[in-house]
Amino acid sequence: MADPVHGDGAPIVGMIGGGQLARMTAAAATALGIGFRVLAASPTEPAAQVVRDTRIGSHDCAQDVLAFAQGCDVVTFDHEHVPAPVLEALESAGAIVRPGPGALFHAQDKLHMRRTLTDLGQPVPAWRIVAGPAEAVAFASEHRWPIVLKVSRGGYDGRGVWVVNSPEQVHEVMATPVAPGVQWLAEEHVPFVRELSAQVARSPHGQAVAYPVVQTRQVNGICAEVLAPAPGLDPERAAQAQHMALQIAGDLAVVGMLAVEMFDTGSQLLVNELAMRPHNSGHWTIEGSVTSQFENHLRAVLDLPLGDPRALAPVAVMVNVIGGDVDRLTSAYRHVLARDPALKVHLYGKQVRPGRKLGHVTVLGRDPDDLLARGRHAADYFAGRIDQ
Amino acid sequence: MADPVHGDGAPIVGMIGGGQLARMTAAAATALGIGFRVLAASPTEPAAQVVRDTRIGSHDCAQDVLAFAQGCDVVTFDHEHVPAPVLEALESAGAIVRPGPGALFHAQDKLHMRRTLTDLGQPVPAWRIVAGPAEAVAFASEHRWPIVLKVSRGGYDGRGVWVVNSPEQVHEVMATPVAPGVQWLAEEHVPFVRELSAQVARSPHGQAVAYPVVQTRQVNGICAEVLAPAPGLDPERAAQAQHMALQIAGDLAVVGMLAVEMFDTGSQLLVNELAMRPHNSGHWTIEGSVTSQFENHLRAVLDLPLGDPRALAPVAVMVNVIGGDVDRLTSAYRHVLARDPALKVHLYGKQVRPGRKLGHVTVLGRDPDDLLARGRHAADYFAGRIDQ
Repeated sequence: MADPVHGDGAPIVGMIGGGQLARMTAAAATALGIGFRVLAASPTEPAAQVVRDTRIGSHDCAQDVLAFAQGCDVVTFDHEHVPAPVLEALESAGAIVRPGPGALFHAQDKLHMRRTLTDLGQPVPAWRIVAGPAEAVAFASEHRWPIVLKVSRGGYDGRGVWVVNSPEQVHEVMATPVAPGVQWLAEEHVPFVRELSAQVARSPHGQAVAYPVVQTRQVNGICAEVLAPAPGLDPERAAQAQHMALQIAGDLAVVGMLAVEMFDTGSQLLVNELAMRPHNSGHWTIEGSVTSQFENHLRAVLDLPLGDPRALAPVAVMVNVIGGDVDRLTSAYRHVLARDPALKVHLYGKQVRPGRKLGHVTVLGRDPDDLLARGRHAADYFAGRIDQ
Repeated sequence: MADPVHGDGAPIVGMIGGGQLARMTAAAATALGIGFRVLAASPTEPAAQVVRDTRIGSHDCAQDVLAFAQGCDVVTFDHEHVPAPVLEALESAGAIVRPGPGALFHAQDKLHMRRTLTDLGQPVPAWRIVAGPAEAVAFASEHRWPIVLKVSRGGYDGRGVWVVNSPEQVHEVMATPVAPGVQWLAEEHVPFVRELSAQVARSPHGQAVAYPVVQTRQVNGICAEVLAPAPGLDPERAAQAQHMALQIAGDLAVVGMLAVEMFDTGSQLLVNELAMRPHNSGHWTIEGSVTSQFENHLRAVLDLPLGDPRALAPVAVMVNVIGGDVDRLTSAYRHVLARDPALKVHLYGKQVRPGRKLGHVTVLGRDPDDLLARGRHAADYFAGRIDQ
């Protein structure tokens, strides 16, 4: 088949990775009339199922990625797993890569991120590189048990992060084999009252917009629920979180969306993780904001003026659909849609596997408790955790 | 290339026609995790540019349409131009076609529509079949000049409709050659104060939802602007319009979206046209309603429970981007997006031609005059009617 056609004179954004973020970005590109191309590992990936200009290839392979980038005005990412040498090869070949490899490395390598944020004076949990179990146990004795052990690279959605409560557990976890060049970090286990996410979009020329700060709930290291805005968050604290995210985006020269995941200890905010792409904590913006995170990511990487990030409703709640034991996603439509005509359903086209993010639902309204109950019911029903 | 993959167990909706309606329906299908296939005449059509499962073929050709329908759970339409024999062949082959040929014929044939609505007691302008100019002039003398002349089939976006002011003009217009079987209708030229559109979605099992009634402004027979809801419309009159649309949808057994375009004479409502598909007067629902017309069309043709049609903002304004003499759609992004960060832009990927619908913009807010000014500025700027 001939190469897919894009709109006359429209810029083409290439996104490496064919997951749900690329799938949802595609809708924003279509509306704006922007050409959109995806590099997917297989035709069954969420974005590959729906995006006309899907190329199949590996994000690890410089040849595949270079071929993919041919004809793209800018290359961006659905995930953080493109190796640095491939990114460098892309830039050497003249491709415009946003966010750039220098910024992106902070989202790829937790050690690099902790070092830079510490140098920039951003508040982070106490941390240390630990060469072996003895150093980790020493770190714990200086702070308190439990501590958090992390590998510097390769982890996401809770993988590569362990909460350990004893020297025995430290030894057990650190027996995990790691790739060459990967280091172990020990961090204090922050006694947070809740987790927050502050998202900003930033353009190459420095324009930036901040989304309302949201509260997230993680289950087994996976984002399970998002409340937008974070309920009862002091306006000054919210402004502080937005300011931190804007500052980090500027200091690291991020282009596109940046999510700063934070611990709210009640008395302070500590930066936990960074993501330089659309993020699970911003899925509510599809319906809940004037401009979704996906549209603003596209605008930012194309250096177009950014869209209004403001919320359209007093409260938005997003609940992830996490795979259970039952495969009945589409058969559950009828009940879920009939029960709640205002619920917005997003399914990613994935095969059901226990623990896998298969989709999400969003509800807008006024009462967070009501919205949360409705969102949870739908997600649980899709997952088969409620009897039919 | 192998056949595109759809989500595991997801139903597949096939839409005949690759225009902007199919393009916008695709986004709704992607979110719901519904498989979506498009029959486009060429790979440059708006939907063909973005929909993974695009098949190229002619909607006039039974063979193409039958091949397209293979594997679709339901077949629906982006336009009304599929000939009756092709629709019958589809149904004979066992395809599920929604809306069905019997309903769709009312949107294809203005004479059939006028006859049925008259029989059903729906208020319509005075009309008559006219075999030649003499009968048309006689009709005018019984009513008043001007009158409206229409061909029973093949017209859309103002084509096939003429307002004539004298016997000379009648002769001139009726000299237009028409296809075999096409008849001429004369209608009174209704002195309306404004045009309204009432949209409803209806399922095979009879569930129906009504959208807020909107005001439309037509320029040269093309929808130019939509205000939702229709400003200052008496609530009882609005309810009457919704009731008329629901009644027509039920009486004609429409499945999917139905738009009933009406004349508001100040003292009464008269039905002008019917469209059995998503409609230009409902583009505002993408951002402006809990459930867009595109999503509800999909839900309806799949006989899934319908979504909440309510508006998310007090006022929504949509303005079409109509092609001018200048080809600078994408070069205009920067100005348009910078000037109005809350504006929602939809471009359809079409080549610029004067008078052609190239896209639309939507703005939500409170003040119709402010929103209209903002929407018109953006549309005029895209079209090159404002100096750069």
